[in-house]
Parts: sequence; structure tokens; C-alpha cells
Amino acid sequence: MEEVKEEHAVHHMNKDLLIDSLKNEDIEGFRTEFLELHPYDQASFFKELDEEHREKIYHYLSPEEMATLFENLEIDDDEYKDVLAEMNPNYAADMISKMYVDDAVDVLNELEKDQAVSYLTIMDEEAAQEIKDLLHYKEYTAGSIMTTDFVSISANQTVRSAMYILKNEAPKAETIYYIYVLDEQKRLLGVISLRDLIVNDDDTMIADITNDRIVSVSVGDDQEEVARKIKDYNFLALPVVDFQNHLLGIITVDDVMDVMEEEASDDYSKLAAVSDMDTIDRSPLSAARKRLPWLIILLFLGMMTASLIGRFEETLNKVAILAVFIPLIAGMAGNTGTQALAVAVRGIATGDLEKENKWKLIVREAGTGVITGAICGILVSIIVFIWKGNIYLGILVGISILSTLIVATLAGALIPLLMHKFKIDPAVASGPFITTINDLISILIYFGMATLFMNYLL
Amino acid sequence: MEEVKEEHAVHHMNKDLLIDSLKNEDIEGFRTEFLELHPYDQASFFKELDEEHREKIYHYLSPEEMATLFENLEIDDDEYKDVLAEMNPNYAADMISKMYVDDAVDVLNELEKDQAVSYLTIMDEEAAQEIKDLLHYKEYTAGSIMTTDFVSISANQTVRSAMYILKNEAPKAETIYYIYVLDEQKRLLGVISLRDLIVNDDDTMIADITNDRIVSVSVGDDQEEVARKIKDYNFLALPVVDFQNHLLGIITVDDVMDVMEEEASDDYSKLAAVSDMDTIDRSPLSAARKRLPWLIILLFLGMMTASLIGRFEETLNKVAILAVFIPLIAGMAGNTGTQALAVAVRGIATGDLEKENKWKLIVREAGTGVITGAICGILVSIIVFIWKGNIYLGILVGISILSTLIVATLAGALIPLLMHKFKIDPAVASGPFITTINDLISILIYFGMATLFMNYLL
Repeated sequence: MEEVKEEHAVHHMNKDLLIDSLKNEDIEGFRTEFLELHPYDQASFFKELDEEHREKIYHYLSPEEMATLFENLEIDDDEYKDVLAEMNPNYAADMISKMYVDDAVDVLNELEKDQAVSYLTIMDEEAAQEIKDLLHYKEYTAGSIMTTDFVSISANQTVRSAMYILKNEAPKAETIYYIYVLDEQKRLLGVISLRDLIVNDDDTMIADITNDRIVSVSVGDDQEEVARKIKDYNFLALPVVDFQNHLLGIITVDDVMDVMEEEASDDYSKLAAVSDMDTIDRSPLSAARKRLPWLIILLFLGMMTASLIGRFEETLNKVAILAVFIPLIAGMAGNTGTQALAVAVRGIATGDLEKENKWKLIVREAGTGVITGAICGILVSIIVFIWKGNIYLGILVGISILSTLIVATLAGALIPLLMHKFKIDPAVASGPFITTINDLISILIYFGMATLFMNYLL
Repeated sequence: MEEVKEEHAVHHMNKDLLIDSLKNEDIEGFRTEFLELHPYDQASFFKELDEEHREKIYHYLSPEEMATLFENLEIDDDEYKDVLAEMNPNYAADMISKMYVDDAVDVLNELEKDQAVSYLTIMDEEAAQEIKDLLHYKEYTAGSIMTTDFVSISANQTVRSAMYILKNEAPKAETIYYIYVLDEQKRLLGVISLRDLIVNDDDTMIADITNDRIVSVSVGDDQEEVARKIKDYNFLALPVVDFQNHLLGIITVDDVMDVMEEEASDDYSKLAAVSDMDTIDRSPLSAARKRLPWLIILLFLGMMTASLIGRFEETLNKVAILAVFIPLIAGMAGNTGTQALAVAVRGIATGDLEKENKWKLIVREAGTGVITGAICGILVSIIVFIWKGNIYLGILVGISILSTLIVATLAGALIPLLMHKFKIDPAVASGPFITTINDLISILIYFGMATLFMNYLL
């Protein structure tokens, strides 16, 4: 989004002074102090204000100054429309047109369609066109996070003239550290770094120092793929091309860091069955609304477990002590399943789990299930025998743990693999979900065996 | 680690050709093809070879060329020592001395102490000293991930002379896009970006364009703190200083991406109770060894639950049907606890959860527990009543769910907050751990109430 930064300076923020100058309507005092701040700090300050003070800021700052702040504003997606509604529409449209185009697109994507269209209608036509070109890319693709603010040159010129172009474009471009070399049809020929320009003589021809074997991504590629490439190759930016190799935009490392954080947070919250992580600020009601769908699904899955146990009521009536070990066995199944799940989901997410490795993973998990099952099974047999003095009960619980751990470990690995195969995001197979599935399996094994070998238990 | 890259070129790898030239000992053919590859691709190719072919590579590449490959090698920490053991010690030491110093430190940190010392003894003295200076910083601190390969200048010179220094230092520095301005005592005065140098006239004095309000981190700061700053402010690098503001090193954005991935993966695996995520390649035995400690702890916690139920054996003997709802109640407690835990752990990790917000979070979670508990409780009461035709049983299960959800939600939020307060990484309070704690609480509530109101159930 924001240019790959060199605005390294950060002023130690004098909050009280800023708030005082807002209260006293000391415009000059406010501007002097505020514009010294790094945009990220400007945004942090802005975020904490109430509406009355925010509205003052819209009057004190130009749309261009507000655009810089807005690019750095980290608020919930659904809050953008409220903040924009506080501004005069012309001011808002002007501000959006002054933002880096990828950030402008992110903001417009959060608005109702008419709202977005009305801003586009009143803003500068050229800016509106640039935004519209980007608006139609699907979410989570390279196209949706790229920017068109890059520097490009043609190959048949010298380092000197390239430096001249660079100086002119520096204020607007997101990064000036990579310069893309294009042919007449705007097809990507190669890339040259500012480092290359600097270490070479002024009269060197660009064509002679262009790197022509370039890594690029397609406009429809997944943003995770983009993040992985930038991370693996340590790039500062990656060009985005269409199928004819026309350069459409670039994606910079700072945007990719946001993607990485988003994806990590997403996987994490899915493992915990919280649909999209709620921030601290939400009310209990809205937090409950986010968690309840999961809890109710899990409640019904839990009722299935209950009705399964209900089928063994007769067994239970005869040997009530069986109930004592239900949470232990179900719990162990859940735990081991979650472990296996996490390994598989991360393997898929990081790309480690390529086709050739899938069978390897399944065999590995089966082996792991046997080993952990055997050790935990023997341990639990001994403990139960010592505790309850019943060798048969010990063996029953031990064997249940053994078979449960094998099945649950395999299920934990297989379910995400299957989901991935059927193009469902495997992270949806959250911890609690796998846990409940494994509850069912483990209860069936435990009570099934108890019923079969009832005579030894009585 | 590796320089913030401009080696943008990536050759489409011709694996067969490379392997053929290795087999035929066609050194020149191999080198021509191999050295065209991006170091990341070189490393990927190298990683897939067997020992015999790897040893050929040590003969075909200079220590310097091997250093570039090694910087990009992503293998498990404990595998570095095996790979190094394949090389001639002098070659290995020479290679390490040619690596970016932060990468060299990472590698040496993975070796036995004598081994590391012996490499340091035989390598170039200057390089050894640079490495030793970095080796004593604690893991996970800014010092442990910084590099000393940065460009610094003094303030009293022109843009022209600064550019001259830059051209000379370009080949060795990790980034040339930020230049740090120091006083005579090597204290950090400010920073200037290459962009600043380029847009200003050659005769401008550096002092006039230096940003003197600079964001830096202390050498002992946590690496997560560094990552957050680079991400929030969109920097390409961040300077690391001691308490007297002497510039000790810099941390570049590519290193921070590795930190982010590491920390995200770490939090994720802890939620799933897998101590450090195992890669797909591990054997079942080593995977089992990583998971067993957790499983055995959880087994003993599970035995506590079992013994708790054991105390209510009398109740169970009278009303065996109570057992039917054990997994449901325990499961719901575990699920809601994991949700609350995940929100709190992420809040702590991202820094959203500052002091002022802690009470807010606790109150919010209590409210959330009441709402989700009431809804799930009423739902379950109705279902149980319809299913079993016993209104008292329905009410018992419903109230158990209500109180369990309140307590479990609060526990899920409070436990990580308390751990954070006592300086324990809250992510250690993994999902299965919280689940088992909540099992205990829920069973106590359920059977406690059942025993109290026994008369209504019979």
C-alpha cells in the first residue's frame, strides 16, 4: 500500500499538545505538530479521537494530507464507511483520489456499491479510471493487492536518462528501488534495481544491465503465493503480469507483510473456531454473534455424541464406572487430532505439502498414532489397574486409548487433506470441529468394546 | 539476512541438465547453468541432492559462491551441523566468513560450542571478530537478528560525497536504501534514504536533509517488537542501538518476514499443543517424540477429570443417564474456552491488548459467556426435554451449560492474561490445555448440581 518507506522519522508524539490545539482551534499549532508525525502515528492519534474532534481534523488537513493518514489507518473493514460519512463527500472523494491506488481500492471495496460509485463520479476522472481498472480484480488475488504506481522505462537509453526519469517519478511511485523495463507493447522485458543504476556508469545502456530472467506473478494468482515468493526470494516488490506478459502492476513487500499477518491470523482463529478474530473493542453482543454459529454447530455435534452414549445406556447401567473415563478418552482423541490437524494445515498453507508428500504424511501420521497410542495406552492401563484394581478395566481403557489415538491422528491429517482436495480451505476444519468428530469415534470404540467384553467387567 | 534483494532475475531451472552435468563432472557446464540461478533456487536444488552430489558441489563452487547458497538454505536447525560436516573444515570456515554476518551467526548458533569455536579459529580474523560480537546476543532479541553490514556516513558532507561512499559500499551492505548518519562517537543522529539522495542536488549538505527523529529499537528488544515496528511503519530496515544510542546494527525487512512467519507458526502450533511444528519429512518416531510430552501431560490432567467423576460414582450409579451428557458439557466448555483463549492470545501478540484494555476484555468475555451460555443453555434444555421427556434433566443440563460457558469463557481469557502478567508466553496455554482445565470445571459444576438436586432426577 503505502510506498515502501523512507520516511524514517518519527516524532515523539505530544498528545496533550495536539488535543489542546484541537480544543483551542489553533489550526497552525496543530498542523505544525501533527504533520511532523509519521503517518502511522497520525493515524493512531486520529483513531482515538471522538467524532467532534475528527471533524475538526477534516477541516485542518488538506485531502492530500488526509490521504496519507488514511493509508495508514488500521480499523475494521466495516468502519471505513462510517468515517467517510463524517466527511464532506467532495472532500472524501478528493482524498480517495490522492491515496495510493491500491489503498483507494481497498477502501472502496468496503463501501456499498452506490456509495463507491458516487465517490468515483465526483472525483478527478483520471484517478477514477485508475481505481476502476483495479476494482474488478477478485479478492485475495494478486490483482486485488497490486498498485499501478510503479516506475517503468524502455531499454534503449542510458543510465543517465533512466536516473532522470526516476527523479521525476520518485514522488508518486510506491517504490523507486526497482525499475521495470518494458518493450513498446508494455510487455515486461526485465527489471533493474536502483542499486544497479548507482554502481554503473552514467553512459551504460539500460539494455546491457537489465536482468531479463524475471520472477513475476499472474494477476489471478493467490495472494498467499505472492507472499511466499517475496519472502523466499527476499524481493522488495514483485511485478504482476497478464497472460501476455504485459506489466499490470507491482506488489510491494509492505503489502505482503499485511497479507502474511492476515493469513496467519485467519488460520489461527479458524483453529480456535472463532470466525474472523474479533478485536478487543467489540461489544459482548457482537462477540457472541461471531462465536455462536460455531458453538451451536458444535452443540449439535455434541448431541450426537450424547445420543451415541445413550445407545449404550444398558451397558452404562450395568457398569457405571465406565462413565469415569469418558472425558479422558474423548479428550485424548481430541488432543491428538488437533495436533495432527495443525501439522497438516500448516503444511498445506506453507506449501511444504506437495503432492508427492501427501502419502508420506499419512503414513507418518499412522506411525505416529501407533507409537503415541501404544505408550499412552500402556501408561493408562497401569494407572487404571492400580487405581481401580481391575485388570480388565485397565486393559479396556488402554486399548481404547491405543485405537482412539491411531484413528484420531489419522483423521486429523486426512480431513484437511481431503478438504484441500475438494478446494475447501482446510483451516475451516477447526480444532473444536475435529475434536468433536474424534469424540464420536472414541466413544464408539470405547463403549463398543465395553459392550463386547461386558462379562469381564462385571 | 541476505541483502534486501535486487537480484530479481530467476532462471527457469533446468534440473535434468544440472544433474547430468554433476554426473558427468562437467564443471564448467554446471557452473554456467547453476550460477545463473537465484540463490533461493540454488538452495532448493542443493537441498534435494544426496550427499555424493552435494560433495561435488563443494568442489565446484568457491566458498563465496557457496555462502550465497547457504544464506538461502531453509533446512531444520539441527541439520546445519550435518551439512557442514560434509565440507572440508577450511572450506566451511571460509564459507561462513563470507556469509552476511547475521546469517553466519544463525548457523554457528546451531552448532556444538567446540565446533563453532574451531571454525572461528581457522577463519579470517576480522570476520571472526565481527561474528563473535554478534554471537553473545540472546535469542529472540533484536541483537540476535541484526546485521552489522550497513552503510553509515557523517553529517558534514555533500550528497555527492555520500553517493560516492554508497557506490563503494554497495557490494557488501545488506541494504543501500537507508544510510545512517552518525556523529564522531558513532551515535545515531538520523537517517537518510537513497530516495532523498537522488531527489536532492549533488551539493546539498547531508545535515540539511537528514531525518533526525528516527525510530530505532534497543539491542535487547524482543524480535516481535521489531517486526511490529517495521510492519506498522512500512520500513525497509530499522536501526538497532545500545542504551547510549550507538548504532550497533540494522534489521532488514526480509529478516522480519522470517520472524513473522516463525512467530505465527509458533503461536499456531502452541494452540494445537504441538511443540514446534514438525516438518513433513520427520519420521513417525521423531514426530511422536515431539507430541508425546504434551499428550502425557494431558493424559494426567485427563486422569484428574476421571478421578473427579469417580467421586460422583454414587450419583452415577443412581442416575446412569447423567453420563450421556458428559462429553457434550465438557466439549462445549472446551470449545468456548479455546475461542476466548485465541482472542486473548492474539490480542497480546499483536499488542492490541494494552493495559487499559484488559479489564474491558474481561468484562466483554463475561458478557459474551452469559449471552452464549443463555442461548445454548435454553436450546439444550429444550432438546433434552423433548428427547428424554424429563424436564428436570433438561433444566440440569441447560443450567450446567449456562454456568460452564460463563466460567470457561472467562477462564479462556483470564489464563493467558495471568500468564502474560507473570512473563510466561501466553501461547503456551494451548487449546488442549485450556480444554482439559475446562473439562474439570464443567464436570464439577454438572455433577455437583446433579448430586444436589438428585431427588428431582430419580
